[in-house]
Amino acid sequence: MPVPAVQAIVFDTFGTVVDWRGSIARDLGAWGPTQGLHADWLRLADRWRARYQPQMQRVRSGEIGFRTLDALHDECLGELLPMLGLGGVTPAQRAHINRVWHRLDPWPDSVPGLTRLKRHHLIGPLSNGNIALLANMAKRAGLPWDLIFSAEHFQRYKPHPDTYLGVCRQLDLPPAQVMMVAAHNDDLHAARACGLATGFVARPTEYGPAQTRDLAAEEAWDVVAVDIEELAARMGA
Amino acid sequence: MPVPAVQAIVFDTFGTVVDWRGSIARDLGAWGPTQGLHADWLRLADRWRARYQPQMQRVRSGEIGFRTLDALHDECLGELLPMLGLGGVTPAQRAHINRVWHRLDPWPDSVPGLTRLKRHHLIGPLSNGNIALLANMAKRAGLPWDLIFSAEHFQRYKPHPDTYLGVCRQLDLPPAQVMMVAAHNDDLHAARACGLATGFVARPTEYGPAQTRDLAAEEAWDVVAVDIEELAARMGA
Repeated sequence: MPVPAVQAIVFDTFGTVVDWRGSIARDLGAWGPTQGLHADWLRLADRWRARYQPQMQRVRSGEIGFRTLDALHDECLGELLPMLGLGGVTPAQRAHINRVWHRLDPWPDSVPGLTRLKRHHLIGPLSNGNIALLANMAKRAGLPWDLIFSAEHFQRYKPHPDTYLGVCRQLDLPPAQVMMVAAHNDDLHAARACGLATGFVARPTEYGPAQTRDLAAEEAWDVVAVDIEELAARMGA
Repeated sequence: MPVPAVQAIVFDTFGTVVDWRGSIARDLGAWGPTQGLHADWLRLADRWRARYQPQMQRVRSGEIGFRTLDALHDECLGELLPMLGLGGVTPAQRAHINRVWHRLDPWPDSVPGLTRLKRHHLIGPLSNGNIALLANMAKRAGLPWDLIFSAEHFQRYKPHPDTYLGVCRQLDLPPAQVMMVAAHNDDLHAARACGLATGFVARPTEYGPAQTRDLAAEEAWDVVAVDIEELAARMGA
């Protein structure tokens, strides 16, 4: 049981800490009409996110060089906007839409849970989001990170080992003293393979009411919790 | 006057935010006797810091590859400890002494000033200290950084332009929207050459009562303040 040794806790962000799907629909659903733009914003969120792994796979495979998630998101918008009847947006409107990923809201337990954990642990995201995205998101949402870890720092996307081991190297901690927390079993699987401690937080509606994946822990992760507040309690915070 | 446009403010750390000289003397002065170790700890602090620029210069010049400040500090201890009558320390004692740089205390205005600035600006260190050092220092001292920027991220020591411009790139901000704050004119000179806004904070006793350098601003920096609280007021925080 490695939990007592854990000094630092890093968090997957999209889905684990923030509600990307609901936030995109709310944010653009409120803003769109002020611009004369009407669309099915939940459909935009779902289609955008569906391209996330295939796009990053092009980077992982070496087909394209590393580029930030902001850049990947914008490339994706080039295809999605016309499909959703938004082909006529101005460059400023497109930029505002793309930056919606900087304006995601946390799940209700995220800020109180992180605030508790911060008292005795170093906390930060370890996200495929780029640094500016994660910094702006944290500022707006009040996520009390001690520092930020991004795929951009390592020029590799999770689940590449360089990301998990890069955190350990930068914190000068052995992997067993660093915990990865995610709502995604595959993220934890990769972190455990690198020697990190693991914490699963259930987010059964991340993908909407019909979600079929990641409804529960699929391995015996070191901590399994219903949310980040319970995780904090389990870590003694 | 670029100040209204500034979105992010990054801080030199040693001397500007924390009092390395007084902290080392207090910390090791309290701990040494518990270990049976007696030395002139202020002299250690001064000699250690005197080697700081020459050591980094070896990295800057390419004579040696990039290594962290923790590693440079430890190399330096190898020479200094025998000179100060501490040649017999154990490896654990030497490690504790080396980590004193993670345990530096802030100047009295640092935490209140940074807390005010954090409300409307992204704030972080931009320091030659390594990431673990800066994270541990912030945790202990309560420095409320949004994120951390270290020479280690860029594998270059200040004043290399890659450090200042790396912050701007990672935050996706033009240099004029990023302010460098330091108690050292040369740091600000290099930052301004990269297009950053500049803020000078006076620390006339950083090197002790007989300090002769950096007693005042030597160029017309965008903001000149007596401390970080005044800087916050000048930034409208």
